[in-house]
Amino acid sequence: MAENPNTLLVVSAHAGDFVWRAGGAIAAATMRGERAVVVCLSFGERGESASQWLAGKPLDEIKAIRREEAEAAASALGAEIEFLDLGDYPLVESEQAVAKLVDVCRRVQPTVVLTHPLADPYNGDHPAAARMALQARVLAQAIGVANSDGSFPTKDDIIGAPPVFFFEPHQPEQSDFKPNVLLDITDAFPLKRKAMECLPAQKHMWEYYTQLAIRRGVQVKRNAGPNLGLPHDTMGEAYVRYFPQVTGVLQ
Amino acid sequence: MAENPNTLLVVSAHAGDFVWRAGGAIAAATMRGERAVVVCLSFGERGESASQWLAGKPLDEIKAIRREEAEAAASALGAEIEFLDLGDYPLVESEQAVAKLVDVCRRVQPTVVLTHPLADPYNGDHPAAARMALQARVLAQAIGVANSDGSFPTKDDIIGAPPVFFFEPHQPEQSDFKPNVLLDITDAFPLKRKAMECLPAQKHMWEYYTQLAIRRGVQVKRNAGPNLGLPHDTMGEAYVRYFPQVTGVLQ
Amino acid sequence: MAENPNTLLVVSAHAGDFVWRAGGAIAAATMRGERAVVVCLSFGERGESASQWLAGKPLDEIKAIRREEAEAAASALGAEIEFLDLGDYPLVESEQAVAKLVDVCRRVQPTVVLTHPLADPYNGDHPAAARMALQARVLAQAIGVANSDGSFPTKDDIIGAPPVFFFEPHQPEQSDFKPNVLLDITDAFPLKRKAMECLPAQKHMWEYYTQLAIRRGVQVKRNAGPNLGLPHDTMGEAYVRYFPQVTGVLQ
Amino acid sequence: MAENPNTLLVVSAHAGDFVWRAGGAIAAATMRGERAVVVCLSFGERGESASQWLAGKPLDEIKAIRREEAEAAASALGAEIEFLDLGDYPLVESEQAVAKLVDVCRRVQPTVVLTHPLADPYNGDHPAAARMALQARVLAQAIGVANSDGSFPTKDDIIGAPPVFFFEPHQPEQSDFKPNVLLDITDAFPLKRKAMECLPAQKHMWEYYTQLAIRRGVQVKRNAGPNLGLPHDTMGEAYVRYFPQVTGVLQ
Amino acid sequence: MAENPNTLLVVSAHAGDFVWRAGGAIAAATMRGERAVVVCLSFGERGESASQWLAGKPLDEIKAIRREEAEAAASALGAEIEFLDLGDYPLVESEQAVAKLVDVCRRVQPTVVLTHPLADPYNGDHPAAARMALQARVLAQAIGVANSDGSFPTKDDIIGAPPVFFFEPHQPEQSDFKPNVLLDITDAFPLKRKAMECLPAQKHMWEYYTQLAIRRGVQVKRNAGPNLGLPHDTMGEAYVRYFPQVTGVLQ
Amino acid sequence: MAENPNTLLVVSAHAGDFVWRAGGAIAAATMRGERAVVVCLSFGERGESASQWLAGKPLDEIKAIRREEAEAAASALGAEIEFLDLGDYPLVESEQAVAKLVDVCRRVQPTVVLTHPLADPYNGDHPAAARMALQARVLAQAIGVANSDGSFPTKDDIIGAPPVFFFEPHQPEQSDFKPNVLLDITDAFPLKRKAMECLPAQKHMWEYYTQLAIRRGVQVKRNAGPNLGLPHDTMGEAYVRYFPQVTGVLQ
Repeated sequence: MAENPNTLLVVSAHAGDFVWRAGGAIAAATMRGERAVVVCLSFGERGESASQWLAGKPLDEIKAIRREEAEAAASALGAEIEFLDLGDYPLVESEQAVAKLVDVCRRVQPTVVLTHPLADPYNGDHPAAARMALQARVLAQAIGVANSDGSFPTKDDIIGAPPVFFFEPHQPEQSDFKPNVLLDITDAFPLKRKAMECLPAQKHMWEYYTQLAIRRGVQVKRNAGPNLGLPHDTMGEAYVRYFPQVTGVLQ
Repeated sequence: MAENPNTLLVVSAHAGDFVWRAGGAIAAATMRGERAVVVCLSFGERGESASQWLAGKPLDEIKAIRREEAEAAASALGAEIEFLDLGDYPLVESEQAVAKLVDVCRRVQPTVVLTHPLADPYNGDHPAAARMALQARVLAQAIGVANSDGSFPTKDDIIGAPPVFFFEPHQPEQSDFKPNVLLDITDAFPLKRKAMECLPAQKHMWEYYTQLAIRRGVQVKRNAGPNLGLPHDTMGEAYVRYFPQVTGVLQ
Repeated sequence: MAENPNTLLVVSAHAGDFVWRAGGAIAAATMRGERAVVVCLSFGERGESASQWLAGKPLDEIKAIRREEAEAAASALGAEIEFLDLGDYPLVESEQAVAKLVDVCRRVQPTVVLTHPLADPYNGDHPAAARMALQARVLAQAIGVANSDGSFPTKDDIIGAPPVFFFEPHQPEQSDFKPNVLLDITDAFPLKRKAMECLPAQKHMWEYYTQLAIRRGVQVKRNAGPNLGLPHDTMGEAYVRYFPQVTGVLQ
Repeated sequence: MAENPNTLLVVSAHAGDFVWRAGGAIAAATMRGERAVVVCLSFGERGESASQWLAGKPLDEIKAIRREEAEAAASALGAEIEFLDLGDYPLVESEQAVAKLVDVCRRVQPTVVLTHPLADPYNGDHPAAARMALQARVLAQAIGVANSDGSFPTKDDIIGAPPVFFFEPHQPEQSDFKPNVLLDITDAFPLKRKAMECLPAQKHMWEYYTQLAIRRGVQVKRNAGPNLGLPHDTMGEAYVRYFPQVTGVLQ
Repeated sequence: MAENPNTLLVVSAHAGDFVWRAGGAIAAATMRGERAVVVCLSFGERGESASQWLAGKPLDEIKAIRREEAEAAASALGAEIEFLDLGDYPLVESEQAVAKLVDVCRRVQPTVVLTHPLADPYNGDHPAAARMALQARVLAQAIGVANSDGSFPTKDDIIGAPPVFFFEPHQPEQSDFKPNVLLDITDAFPLKRKAMECLPAQKHMWEYYTQLAIRRGVQVKRNAGPNLGLPHDTMGEAYVRYFPQVTGVLQ
Repeated sequence: MAENPNTLLVVSAHAGDFVWRAGGAIAAATMRGERAVVVCLSFGERGESASQWLAGKPLDEIKAIRREEAEAAASALGAEIEFLDLGDYPLVESEQAVAKLVDVCRRVQPTVVLTHPLADPYNGDHPAAARMALQARVLAQAIGVANSDGSFPTKDDIIGAPPVFFFEPHQPEQSDFKPNVLLDITDAFPLKRKAMECLPAQKHMWEYYTQLAIRRGVQVKRNAGPNLGLPHDTMGEAYVRYFPQVTGVLQ
């Protein structure tokens, strides 16, 4: 920590999202010695657990299974994980849920935030999570905003203005997702694959998201140009940077 | 060069554009020991020299004045400059003009390209310059595209896929210019100011673009957040990155 | 039903919307022997009943009048109709209202859904209805989402992924309504006209929407091309398809 | 009033917004003898009072200070001011808050409405204020919509359809703010400056917004063309007209 | 002229466009005593004269017929008309054609310019005309731009920066035409109708564009609000203002 | 022909584009007994033949190789093919090139047209091909537009208004490609694969575009919903319909 003060905060609507969509970025961060914290707003217990409902399992058991899988996946990525258990399908936005996210932001002090993009015609929970994450990131910057229990002054320091990146939705074009950052995850991909394999109920997704990493890797190479000498098997993840990049060098 | 292989190529429709819009980026590059090459497609002899026409000067003299001023400004920024003398108002797009830019690209081997944005309702030469720059950058990557004189094989190596940044137009909102990169030019600003002062006919612009640098500097600080400890007098320039950023780290 | 399993579900913010905006599509469906079900989220009792308020009628009477008119119009179109009575001006979005729509979706098993577009600067109830309809359509697909009374398992089967079409708002350009489907309603128009005439308080709209059908009919012919030999008096309705069309043939 | 029946209504999320963003338009209106009414939805007590929280002041005192400053600024502009005290950071949208704004609209009978634009990634209170203002403006037109206390008939007349203008956010491009109206505030600027100086805690903003007025003034001149003979020191404010302009003359 | 120095310049791709799309604005201007000049870039001899080609008429005769009709229509509107005879289907953009339009701009000294919008998937000549009109308007402002015959100095004064309005295309939504100005043409409509009747080959359009004027008139009333007391039979035309409006009053 | 009058016209900038991007649609059409005609505007001899230039082959030989490969691929798909040999990198738009495409349109009488989308930051030839194809499709509808050799009357009948579909570019999101039609090519895929294998120089693309077909197939299934019972291994291609769909049934 002393050597690398960077901290990645990942706000995920359901328990599996962070693996498919941002597993490479998370693993790359922890491999660099950075801290990564995943916050799952729900377990995806209603909307993304069809096979378990079909098997007649009760709600609590489904939530427990999803939690266990997500913990294993986070562990494989070297990340911490916590759950707000706000319910899904629908994930309902509320002042109180945002306030809890404000607490998390101040406790974790992220230097980078990852979350869902703001549009997804196939799943309203994803934009709801994004709206709450964005609002919490702003509120957590204000010294006048109290803790979620109403107490004051704030338990933790206010935060700065960490950049926000939206990770890739399942149907990118339909979600108006036009990547402006392509992340090279070649070295991190084995950990991402390992994390995906912690989610056995969605085994058909392992290959799907491996192929997506290959396709985004082709774009990494194409946009970097031949001069950079990236290897043939470059793997990638796509992101949308929400706020302007601040930099001292155009490159 | 051996120490810093980066080379900035700036494609400017008229002789003054690169100063107001990208002077900070150019100076910052040369201060880092990088090479910067400005290509002026025209001198701005018809569209941006009203006072000289009013003074009754002939075309050739106007072009000579504009060339001299631009050379002085480039020199102040530490940059090389060349002129394609394609005429302005209108700057006419042609296959031959693009071919000359392909030659330049291959000779210069840019690692970064700066040019105008693709829309400007107030000045059609700016988007025309941008379209030609973008097309030349693509053609210069193809080994099958000949030199501008039709000879073959190519005199210089083909280029890679350097990133392209659009610099700020005079009326950004009207030109659909939504910056996604804010460049900190605090250290480079004195050179930019010096270069602006090489353009005496537009003295009222010196202050205008100093104020713009202050305003963009406020945004640099706001988007970086308080944590980065940027100084009170941070100066900035705004850019639009055209292709996705390729990176190994989200930050 | 056995011969034609298709079912059209129309989600309408107020009691009259489905007539002006989708009457042709509804009549065309029922004329093909399909089932059509209209759900009115409110009666339009506050926002679209000015003449009755001016006449000093009480709320309940206004609602009763509007219900009766809507039932007559639905009957003219060959459609069933039901009312959720959620109130209008404003139509307030709520988890409970969406849950009731989920019940409807599962009970009706629509193969096509029609609703308002997502923007309307003149009437916030319309986008609110659309957001609820879209959310209900997604939730109704999930086996883990309970009935609106909280009971479980679901009374009716979950639904598939029926296509959604937005019907035309009163000021299309201002509502960012760019039709990508033009429906030929020539044969269905007499029923639509008959349904419009069930709404006597808005008599001036009869001619307005007849003329709109003529104008959209001109576009049907123009976009179909002369080869299809459409008749001179082709009548049309305009729609926006929200999800991509799935097809085996490009045509 | 009899001579000039125009009334400007300004809906401001926080206590200072109307000064920086619309002070020129307000002063210009009152200088023409028109009425101007500012409604502050909150005092900006949590999100825009960092120095006072740092000084350890309690909430009530902060609100009182902000109120006093806003009243002084409004007075400098010749405007009336009222406060709904809905809380900020977050400013929570609610049916009741909108109903209160409906009351205000009917009482004030605005001929023009100013408010925030619908997007602002840096401050969610601004779009929330805009959405409530727009909704209230629509509801206030309907005779069937009751007073905010539920009583009926309405205490004041319903309103017409006043045009709405969005004033400029702090980071215009990031807020998708593309001005389509440039207001000449040259004569009104001294009053705007005086109003700004009523907000001592944000002294660094006085110069910032003076410079913005100069920059927008340059655009006023550039878009008006040289023929209009506007003075060198023209000052401006930028606006987005939300509904189409209705006019008898194109000019 | 002395009483009313305003001059309307209408740049029309084909001989009939100005009648259907801007006849109301033209007549309203001439009824106010202003000058209106129509420039037809072509006669529409190939693309909009199908019935005459079917009748086997030769090109020159078709052009003569179209010219005569357009002259009659312009006369009915009280406007002057001239023809550049650049050919249609396709209307080819060229430096020389733009130079001729520069001459026209300087000779006519327009205070307002009307032309086609920049997109029309159904007719490429329309955007081509718009691009040339916009470019000519910019070039005509520059003292260094020569006459179209290359001579210098310019025969007429350079122009200012007249506002530009795009008139309505045949399929507005498909052409991304979102009106931001609604023009009340109630008083001018009889002249517009008279002008339409000068185009006998397109008799079916008379009623079509009368109905469009009614529909746009409904929007004039709706956007003006009931307070303005516009008559029941208000007629309208829709426009898109291309540059920001410059004004001293928000209204 | 008598049995199935449909004819697909595919306008391809380079010799290989139609295979990767539309091979499934072409094969599906010919498998239904329809005619498919591919027009290659160039051979892709400069921009897409790097390995052959590296091998030192002369231009004519490269063109011959590309032609042969494209003929084999077309044959595998059951399609006819012709070449306009307009040159590539850049593919230059010209009136004469468009006129030749008008001839093709009238000779082939397409009922459906496929071409590139209008934006592609990585390859300017693609949008140039699309612009020419769209313009030719419009001009070919006009009886007054002559043959490409200037002769008159037209050798073939004018065409109707066939729908246009844009096929998928290599980097869809960067090219603003938001599919609104998903084509099920499961049955046609073996032919597409066979056609891909006719292009040995781009062997690495075979697997890439096979994986893309799988990914688009997943979206076919997701958007169709489970009710349609599509097989697990559904393959797809994505398209953008440019003009509104004309239909008698919403489905």
